[in-house]
Amino acid sequence: MLDCAIIGGGPAGLAAGLYATRGGLKHVTLFEMGLPGGQITQSSEIENYPGFFDHSKTGMDFMDTWQEQCFHFGLKHEMKKIQHITKNDKYFTLTFENSETAQAKTVIVCTGSTPKKAGFKGEDDFFGKGVSTCATCDGFFYKNKPVAVLGGGDTALEEAFYLSNICSEVYVIHRRDTFRAAPSTIERVQRKENIHLLTDTTIEEVFGDAMGVGGIRIKNKEGNVSALDVPGIFVFVGHNVNNEVLKDENGHFICEVSEWGQVVVDLSMKTSLAGLFAAGDVRIEAPKQVVCAAGDGATAALQVISYIQEHA
Amino acid sequence: MLDCAIIGGGPAGLAAGLYATRGGLKHVTLFEMGLPGGQITQSSEIENYPGFFDHSKTGMDFMDTWQEQCFHFGLKHEMKKIQHITKNDKYFTLTFENSETAQAKTVIVCTGSTPKKAGFKGEDDFFGKGVSTCATCDGFFYKNKPVAVLGGGDTALEEAFYLSNICSEVYVIHRRDTFRAAPSTIERVQRKENIHLLTDTTIEEVFGDAMGVGGIRIKNKEGNVSALDVPGIFVFVGHNVNNEVLKDENGHFICEVSEWGQVVVDLSMKTSLAGLFAAGDVRIEAPKQVVCAAGDGATAALQVISYIQEHA
Repeated sequence: MLDCAIIGGGPAGLAAGLYATRGGLKHVTLFEMGLPGGQITQSSEIENYPGFFDHSKTGMDFMDTWQEQCFHFGLKHEMKKIQHITKNDKYFTLTFENSETAQAKTVIVCTGSTPKKAGFKGEDDFFGKGVSTCATCDGFFYKNKPVAVLGGGDTALEEAFYLSNICSEVYVIHRRDTFRAAPSTIERVQRKENIHLLTDTTIEEVFGDAMGVGGIRIKNKEGNVSALDVPGIFVFVGHNVNNEVLKDENGHFICEVSEWGQVVVDLSMKTSLAGLFAAGDVRIEAPKQVVCAAGDGATAALQVISYIQEHA
Repeated sequence: MLDCAIIGGGPAGLAAGLYATRGGLKHVTLFEMGLPGGQITQSSEIENYPGFFDHSKTGMDFMDTWQEQCFHFGLKHEMKKIQHITKNDKYFTLTFENSETAQAKTVIVCTGSTPKKAGFKGEDDFFGKGVSTCATCDGFFYKNKPVAVLGGGDTALEEAFYLSNICSEVYVIHRRDTFRAAPSTIERVQRKENIHLLTDTTIEEVFGDAMGVGGIRIKNKEGNVSALDVPGIFVFVGHNVNNEVLKDENGHFICEVSEWGQVVVDLSMKTSLAGLFAAGDVRIEAPKQVVCAAGDGATAALQVISYIQEHA
């Protein structure tokens, strides 16, 4: 019987593991198919995690200390994929891909969300080296430089506005002729002098060299291809919330989720199902920042300890 | 006109300053009477902040990087004490101790809370060196060692239970003969083998040397003084929420607060007053952990940027 099963090994899961084990729980396992670390390991540089300010370190370097620290206190890691979770009166049962099961007193879901890919040439090769899915994280690296934003929804336009306060020019590239965003947001973006809206346009390719991105090739509706010299491209074409593990055998969610599939939590990271907690990008209103996800994980783990004490 | 006034320079305030300035806001000032850093600067060691795992570093060392990082992006620091805050239709007015004023589009309150002192001899001298007010932070440093807990309320007993899963013995010292805690909590504590309840007892003195605490001298109701050899003492005699700045000239709070004076916020750190945000230990349900306060600060700053964009 596990005291706590943590599903997902990004910042939220690791912070939860640190707080649960350091808080005295003996049987805490983090389930993650690969090396723990999360999306941030794909970044070439991090400068917005408070207390970590070393431009020579990559996202992978950054997570090294996290792993060492978490496993030091007794957190276990298993590379097993969980298919679904059920709960009886008292305990949770985790069912793995191979149909084996395990039991746990509490569960913290930290499976995050995955930004969708746009599918242009070079997108994967330059991801974290000029191609980004997070303006808050990476916008500052392009201070007073031009950037491109791909997308036409609320998030794309809001992030374009955010970038316009940092970057010299922001080119918003959208394959349709109208934007699917709130009218007030569209107006604000149209009024901003350094935002340029390129509608009926797609990205064909991102190009560059070992030093990073040189620019993108874009195609308009007449089929004309031109180059846009930007060192950064921000892709906002949606997120997949990784909530599959919360669906029971009939496809119903075991706890309340929002219309976008994000897990509903309160300030304590409690879900609507007692003993089940959610932390990080899988929850509603997640700011999608490492330090926020880590705070969530710590909060959830402290709640887990209280929950186990009360139900002992 | 400030884009954002941040009141309080602990982890929440510094993280808010980092995210607000790195997010493109030009005029962001942190108001803090001393050096920024917060309560954590009084700790001799930190091992539960994810990504920071160096036993040779003190709380003061830990906050050095934070300060450097935050001020690098343009955060300003002013050593001015704010008396109160008012808001008209659009803007906030901050009134300083010397009756000068400043205006701000948004305010983030990060004034924290202050643990109350018990008043025994040596409490100040050994604070952060054996005397602690945070079981989550410092409990693990006494793994398999005996500790004392001072206090008789819910927090004291819950923290004693938390410590009992880590430490060898937990001596709960309470000056009265009954506990002011939930009956279920009292029962749970009474059932736990390694928790020992010493009622009608007070701490006279904590003693030790340059290496840390050696023990405490306690006095029972007969007036007998004895020594208890414990390397750690956890004091839980209440917190003062630092919410004075949120009271108007008539003593009324400008936003909703809980019955204990904590600022009511939602998951976005919004208070009941538009444009006013709260982060860290001053808010409801704060886990009182550095990483949680930092996450709050980042969340609040991102909300500030959105708020300013919407009201531009």
